[in-house]
Amino acid sequence: MTAAVLANNLWVILCGLFVFMMTIAVGLLEVGELGHRVIGSLVKTILITGLAVLVMAIVGFNTAFAPTIGGVIGNPLYGPGLFLGGFSPGIADSWWSVSGAGLRTGTYFLFETAFAAVTLALVAVIALHKMKPSAFAIYSVVYFVLIWAVPAAWIWNPSGWLAKLGMVDFAGGLVVHGAAGAAGLGIVWQIWREEKAKGLKVSPPVHYEVNAGWLTVAILLLWVGWFGFNPGSVLAFNDEAIVVVETTFIAAACAMVSTSMTAYILTREVFNPLYVVNGILMGLIVITPLAGFVSPASALVLGLLCGPIFVYAEKVVGRAKWMSDPVGLFPGHLVGGIFGVLMIAFFAQNQFAAGSGFPGLPNGVLFGGGGAAVKQLGIEVLGIGVAVIAVFVLSHLTVRVLAALMQGITTNYTEAGPVETTSGVPAALG
Amino acid sequence: MTAAVLANNLWVILCGLFVFMMTIAVGLLEVGELGHRVIGSLVKTILITGLAVLVMAIVGFNTAFAPTIGGVIGNPLYGPGLFLGGFSPGIADSWWSVSGAGLRTGTYFLFETAFAAVTLALVAVIALHKMKPSAFAIYSVVYFVLIWAVPAAWIWNPSGWLAKLGMVDFAGGLVVHGAAGAAGLGIVWQIWREEKAKGLKVSPPVHYEVNAGWLTVAILLLWVGWFGFNPGSVLAFNDEAIVVVETTFIAAACAMVSTSMTAYILTREVFNPLYVVNGILMGLIVITPLAGFVSPASALVLGLLCGPIFVYAEKVVGRAKWMSDPVGLFPGHLVGGIFGVLMIAFFAQNQFAAGSGFPGLPNGVLFGGGGAAVKQLGIEVLGIGVAVIAVFVLSHLTVRVLAALMQGITTNYTEAGPVETTSGVPAALG
Amino acid sequence: MTAAVLANNLWVILCGLFVFMMTIAVGLLEVGELGHRVIGSLVKTILITGLAVLVMAIVGFNTAFAPTIGGVIGNPLYGPGLFLGGFSPGIADSWWSVSGAGLRTGTYFLFETAFAAVTLALVAVIALHKMKPSAFAIYSVVYFVLIWAVPAAWIWNPSGWLAKLGMVDFAGGLVVHGAAGAAGLGIVWQIWREEKAKGLKVSPPVHYEVNAGWLTVAILLLWVGWFGFNPGSVLAFNDEAIVVVETTFIAAACAMVSTSMTAYILTREVFNPLYVVNGILMGLIVITPLAGFVSPASALVLGLLCGPIFVYAEKVVGRAKWMSDPVGLFPGHLVGGIFGVLMIAFFAQNQFAAGSGFPGLPNGVLFGGGGAAVKQLGIEVLGIGVAVIAVFVLSHLTVRVLAALMQGITTNYTEAGPVETTSGVPAALG
Repeated sequence: MTAAVLANNLWVILCGLFVFMMTIAVGLLEVGELGHRVIGSLVKTILITGLAVLVMAIVGFNTAFAPTIGGVIGNPLYGPGLFLGGFSPGIADSWWSVSGAGLRTGTYFLFETAFAAVTLALVAVIALHKMKPSAFAIYSVVYFVLIWAVPAAWIWNPSGWLAKLGMVDFAGGLVVHGAAGAAGLGIVWQIWREEKAKGLKVSPPVHYEVNAGWLTVAILLLWVGWFGFNPGSVLAFNDEAIVVVETTFIAAACAMVSTSMTAYILTREVFNPLYVVNGILMGLIVITPLAGFVSPASALVLGLLCGPIFVYAEKVVGRAKWMSDPVGLFPGHLVGGIFGVLMIAFFAQNQFAAGSGFPGLPNGVLFGGGGAAVKQLGIEVLGIGVAVIAVFVLSHLTVRVLAALMQGITTNYTEAGPVETTSGVPAALG
Repeated sequence: MTAAVLANNLWVILCGLFVFMMTIAVGLLEVGELGHRVIGSLVKTILITGLAVLVMAIVGFNTAFAPTIGGVIGNPLYGPGLFLGGFSPGIADSWWSVSGAGLRTGTYFLFETAFAAVTLALVAVIALHKMKPSAFAIYSVVYFVLIWAVPAAWIWNPSGWLAKLGMVDFAGGLVVHGAAGAAGLGIVWQIWREEKAKGLKVSPPVHYEVNAGWLTVAILLLWVGWFGFNPGSVLAFNDEAIVVVETTFIAAACAMVSTSMTAYILTREVFNPLYVVNGILMGLIVITPLAGFVSPASALVLGLLCGPIFVYAEKVVGRAKWMSDPVGLFPGHLVGGIFGVLMIAFFAQNQFAAGSGFPGLPNGVLFGGGGAAVKQLGIEVLGIGVAVIAVFVLSHLTVRVLAALMQGITTNYTEAGPVETTSGVPAALG
Repeated sequence: MTAAVLANNLWVILCGLFVFMMTIAVGLLEVGELGHRVIGSLVKTILITGLAVLVMAIVGFNTAFAPTIGGVIGNPLYGPGLFLGGFSPGIADSWWSVSGAGLRTGTYFLFETAFAAVTLALVAVIALHKMKPSAFAIYSVVYFVLIWAVPAAWIWNPSGWLAKLGMVDFAGGLVVHGAAGAAGLGIVWQIWREEKAKGLKVSPPVHYEVNAGWLTVAILLLWVGWFGFNPGSVLAFNDEAIVVVETTFIAAACAMVSTSMTAYILTREVFNPLYVVNGILMGLIVITPLAGFVSPASALVLGLLCGPIFVYAEKVVGRAKWMSDPVGLFPGHLVGGIFGVLMIAFFAQNQFAAGSGFPGLPNGVLFGGGGAAVKQLGIEVLGIGVAVIAVFVLSHLTVRVLAALMQGITTNYTEAGPVETTSGVPAALG
């Protein structure tokens, strides 16, 4: 390997490891926000981590990243990807779509598998206490083979139809966060259908109880994980990868201040841990789709916008009586991810985007992009629309089929809290 | 340094850091499986971490890795290794046995010292609550100078007699896991001798109590640690190092599924955290001795075998009334490690092994190895036999001598649980 | 980028990430030593982490590291550093003072910002429970713009007046640890002024209560962080960076043994967790200012000196009735940091120092440095004196001004313990 290929693989595989830790960190985040007895959160995220590796290795990596069939889905039988080459050493070659940087199949597989895992962990916060463990386990398999793969194959796979149209989404504002929100919506709607059928007028809310220690470990691991998530998404170690570290961290820091301030103005509470932590997360989410396209100063501006958006979105979502979103999937990941994707058309600067592999991305509206920027906005809006709908439909169909097969997907959750058996086995996953 | 030498040192020293975290992670695993009040587990593993660095730096690195005296033990007075060169800058040169990859003495020292530390942490799970802290501290010094060094000098040191015979053990199925089991057996036998002398008919079992938070942090750190453990054991950053990331992670994921399934079939418990976590560990243990010799598909097969093996071994070990093995040293590390070493002769593929520095390793029986594979099996069986016996004898002799000097090595442990004093000082280590 | 520049940036940015984790680790250390209910410790250190990124990005990086005005303070308006280049891509160029190693502005920024953050986290242990959150937040901004920047601009910035005089401080015995102590002294004196004014005769001590789990996670993260702290401070990945890993880890391990032994001799307590952990920290602190200048054997000697120094210093500081130093800022960081800086003149060896970028540093007294070593000692003493005084004065003036504006900086802390409101909002930061 040349020096650059060595550095690229070393960088991306280490970044993959950091992202790998984020799935379990989401479990710790649930425990940190909802109380320390949520043993199911931890089992759930450990299971997701393992299932991601297994299912993606068998075929999910191909359905997302192999050369697509008609731009729609990766070829499941593509040789070097199908079970990572099986008994042959094909895994050691460069993967077709990242061969420019010399990334090996093994490197790229770990990196993207970690992304798939953490995306499902985000979806799963909505299943908390309410979805049967067995139903969720089967859903996971479908998810890694199909539901996660669809936006990835369309947008991140260079042979995907949206990628060919010019849609970009740097590290997954839509492919990860927006899609997690859409998939979660597909599940939560089914939960509500079953709750209504039981005669409930209101979906039982999940009880909050801050556990500061686990909340802290969670935000630390997630912040470290995002060091892999965004900077690693350059898929090379170059000058721009270093810039992305800074845009990512600056957006997080600004959003922390902005969200704490907004919460203070509304509630007069100083430094509520939930707003400090959710502010950091909102900044990380919003910058994700464009961290590789913008300047540090733009990251500052984007971070400052996060506070009012998150606090307002949380208020609106909180009014819904037909569902419970205790860890902020919709105001955080769905709203933040989509907002960030839209901002590409405003804040992108070609001189940054070129370094992260998108030399054709025009400047945004705020940087003189003009008509090209408006066209880019149109493409992004189209992509958001079709991807959100597709993921929502696939996710909802999956749980509908599971509900038919298993007499419903929901547990007997009541506001009294999750039932945990003495042996430590969760009665309901998460 | 050339690009390759830079990458090799960067990779191996970072992998060393990940392995370095595993010793304390074993302490957290004990807390996660046995309840959160086991303060001694944490002090014990912190002490092991520090003592490993100190004793290995003074002489233990030499007894394991310096050119051997007659193939049996590393020369303790070998210059560049004895106290890492003392006041001279010899530490900055390449170490003799890894100079092909340009690994510096400092790089290789950190990596192997982390291995020595975590091996003793595994041994120490068997001393839990039952061995005097002072006895364990002295045992540690002997361990790093001699007990750990023996299998390392025989198998990993290229001048060792088993290495010269052709024995291989990629990242320590025998040198780490099997040897930890053998050393633990040497201790637990002495504990039982003392318990019998006190008139006990049954060795008091150690109380189980799952603490999900710490269990989760432990498995996360151990999984991350194994990213260093196996892929770092290529002792270079090359194509094969990347393959090893995948074989390691796939085996872990498959074993998680296989062990959960096996436990479900036997107990009807869905997703018992102990089996989820121990399944992952079993997969990581079994793949360790051959992660650098096999394909991803072979890792899948090996992972699937783990569930039945672990659950059955745990049942057999659990019947023993004369000892308590609360964290699974024998069914996990001893059985899994040795099983993995035996599988080398069945699953190895020369095209993978060549990349991890073993171009002479023949294909396994399943890949047309024929007579050469059978001969390899014989060598591995021989190596397992002599190493297990040697380590067991050295470990048992050490505790016998300590028992004579200290009026026994055991504490007054009863089933009622460990006695922890109010000041936070453990009455019994671990 | 050339292979060396790739490796240097990869190394330093990863080391920066490890150091980045240390700020929150200090919060976990407070929780580990003082009990698990100290939610404010965690909010405080998360806030510090975010504020460091934000304030340093806007101007603090410049005041510390831009070409200085008269050797006294970095030019706040220096283009490439002011808000990291703003909307321009200047962040991707090499930073002027580290261009020899090809370190990019983004790389160097993350590394140094992480140092600034953890230094304030050390200062803040003294504010525990006693300082108003709002006062501390404003202090933080002043700290990153000015108080932290002063010793950094004088000693680490090659255009600083002390650096030009020949003063060296490898990874921050004075710039980090000594200065944290001096800044803390400036705060604690104001706290005592306010406590006296309330009629108190004794400053209410902060309650101790070991929480072994968090203490363990803290020491693990801090040890891992120091892997970034010291070896990263070579600001390049070369042979000496690898040596620094070993000098750092050996000093920590020896100091663990030495401190545990000293405590045992005085108290007959075996393996008190607080002395085990504080011993490791003391070793890491003492080696910090000279880890890149000394041999492994010198690190052993320095580590052995730590036990008596820490235990004695703790006893002396513990006698003070006018302040409470529950996590050991003064006996650990102030005393240890300054002691380490003084040891440069005794233990330095030019052949090591040259590798870490100080080819002009003379051998120490113990290695035949003679007159040059004595001169170096004089320079170090001068630097310690002026830097400690300057930081103390700046810190104290800042809190005096804040006290005037906010009717005092202290909360109504009593020995009964911190008041934590039910919503999880800390009444007093930390």
